[in-house]
Amino acid sequence: MNFTIHRDQFVQSVQNVSKAISSRTTIPILTGIKIDAAEDGVTLTGSDSDISIESFIPKETEDHQLVDIKSPGSIILPARFFAEIVKKLPEETIEVAVADQFLTTLKSGASEFKLNGLDPEEYPRLPVIEETNVFKLPTELLKNIIRQTVFAVSTVETRPILTGVHWAIDNGTLTCTATDSHRLAMRQVKAEMNENDIAFSNVVIPGKSLNELSKILDDHDEYIDIIVTDNQILFKGKNLLFFSRLLDGNYPATKNMIPTQSKTSVTLDTKKFMQAIERALLLSRDGKNNVVNFKTLDSDQLEITSVTPEVGKVTENLDYHDFNGEDLRISFNGKNIIDALRVIDSTEIRIDFTGAMSPFVMKPTENEFMLHLFSPVRTY
Amino acid sequence: MNFTIHRDQFVQSVQNVSKAISSRTTIPILTGIKIDAAEDGVTLTGSDSDISIESFIPKETEDHQLVDIKSPGSIILPARFFAEIVKKLPEETIEVAVADQFLTTLKSGASEFKLNGLDPEEYPRLPVIEETNVFKLPTELLKNIIRQTVFAVSTVETRPILTGVHWAIDNGTLTCTATDSHRLAMRQVKAEMNENDIAFSNVVIPGKSLNELSKILDDHDEYIDIIVTDNQILFKGKNLLFFSRLLDGNYPATKNMIPTQSKTSVTLDTKKFMQAIERALLLSRDGKNNVVNFKTLDSDQLEITSVTPEVGKVTENLDYHDFNGEDLRISFNGKNIIDALRVIDSTEIRIDFTGAMSPFVMKPTENEFMLHLFSPVRTY
Repeated sequence: MNFTIHRDQFVQSVQNVSKAISSRTTIPILTGIKIDAAEDGVTLTGSDSDISIESFIPKETEDHQLVDIKSPGSIILPARFFAEIVKKLPEETIEVAVADQFLTTLKSGASEFKLNGLDPEEYPRLPVIEETNVFKLPTELLKNIIRQTVFAVSTVETRPILTGVHWAIDNGTLTCTATDSHRLAMRQVKAEMNENDIAFSNVVIPGKSLNELSKILDDHDEYIDIIVTDNQILFKGKNLLFFSRLLDGNYPATKNMIPTQSKTSVTLDTKKFMQAIERALLLSRDGKNNVVNFKTLDSDQLEITSVTPEVGKVTENLDYHDFNGEDLRISFNGKNIIDALRVIDSTEIRIDFTGAMSPFVMKPTENEFMLHLFSPVRTY
Repeated sequence: MNFTIHRDQFVQSVQNVSKAISSRTTIPILTGIKIDAAEDGVTLTGSDSDISIESFIPKETEDHQLVDIKSPGSIILPARFFAEIVKKLPEETIEVAVADQFLTTLKSGASEFKLNGLDPEEYPRLPVIEETNVFKLPTELLKNIIRQTVFAVSTVETRPILTGVHWAIDNGTLTCTATDSHRLAMRQVKAEMNENDIAFSNVVIPGKSLNELSKILDDHDEYIDIIVTDNQILFKGKNLLFFSRLLDGNYPATKNMIPTQSKTSVTLDTKKFMQAIERALLLSRDGKNNVVNFKTLDSDQLEITSVTPEVGKVTENLDYHDFNGEDLRISFNGKNIIDALRVIDSTEIRIDFTGAMSPFVMKPTENEFMLHLFSPVRTY
């Protein structure tokens, strides 16, 4: 194998596939990046066997040549070293050449690295996925869906299924749901499909996979194709393949948890509400489980308070935009509310309560595609 | 005590004095910030008993009023909470009022915090320092002196005196020296004095103190006054007092360590030399103690190499700007060289070697005010 490649493209691709590589893997060959040079370009692959990422650098773009292949071939190079080396090489192009015993030379200007490679034949094959059941989402929208749900997954392994985000398509609508059993985030979008009758449920994508995917999605791709199988999901851009295994097990039925009625309904300015809770959290973090108290005062204002007896007390008053229903006192985890307010992307929110001991729903007032559900906290 | 204060000024001063406060102190009152309101303005104080910082907010600046004192007084408030609270308060001004039992109210717009304060009478007095032996340095220069020496102090406590930077004034020249016994950084400047005959030696300022000082030095102060006593140093700006204790013990005599002759002398481009060593370090970090090998090739070029047998080898070739003397092979800690190159602020450096087993000297070619000394590393 011998080729010369444009450094910046190479660095970008190496960084992308490195996102799949774990330094704690028990399979030594997976600490490496696979490099395949073929007539049409160079393909890089990284994998931790849960996530696999393939990035392709084409021989040329419309404007200029990116790769000059002298002889095709494959090699595995140690990912951590390789990623840092290509980033630091001095010139615009890098020459990669493999000799006997997988000894690989990287040359750039007056700098030369000789790295011990590994046999590419030993690298595991990526899953082969049949391209039926394809739907697609705009890249920007996919990023938003991830951002607006993945923060709510569980980070503890007691119920592994809750560490993933549940995706289901019904009637052309994709519904994404995440919950850690104290709060739930739900986001719906219309999916664009090549066939009309795609429908699935109980597809649970690990939160970690979605976080990594979100980091490497390229805004140059207008759309991402998505293909779901029994145990894998594939996200496919022009020069990117991102495979993730799915989580085993049944995701809880969340639909019935969401109250459809309301006893107290308030509409608030998103930013002011967020800042008031952030201040209340200053006195409810250490050993207080982020408990914030919420109380309707009259038809104009509500009061937010929190107390750490040794330190002090904070009281925040906030104007409603709108108020309907019964007076209410309720306590909740303020940090969970902040997490949701951060992704809600709306200047105004509505909260529907059904009593001090029942879960309550927060939504943007501007659209119906998003919903956040929270359990209250008992304070006595 | 009751006053209203401009929030941004308050936040800045609180952040500055917080730099002296340690959450691990064994003296409970030192977890607090002292606030003194007097007719002419508000003074904040923070201390961990090694470092003490006092920041003054005057009643008014040339353009506008900063503080409105309704009644003077003092209070101690819990530093960590207080610093975060003032940062997050909603309006441009903050009202601070102390009631019975040191209960303190902070009000800003619709936000109100009640904090349990402590008795200001229990706060330790700052050292009283007689203002003789004053010299001064431009703020910018003082920051540079710190940056160019403090990185070389020892971070291990086996020889506590080496965790500080040694300052001495002789003949109107301030010499600052730091060493961890493997490398040494030295910087000289002309000090400006009010009296002509200031001279001292064996003043050793803790590296930590200098790092904190550097962070809060205000570029609005053109000069900083510096006053040295037996066990304290005071840095004094217009609205800032920064006290640090000095380290006990005798600093080693470093002057004799510095070779005055040279057997091999090379002049190099600073940036290219730095980048070549950074790449060499990629293969000499893990368990290799950052050892980089340096070899003169001919009168035009030198070679820098490093090896991690399991991973591979890197070879860098670098052009001299100038070469004099004998051929040489030497090994050194590349990270120490990088640390020095980062602060050398010169496009070209000269290295003077006196043999493969002897310490060598690196200097900027553009001035004589700075010197870095390194021990070689034995590699066999």
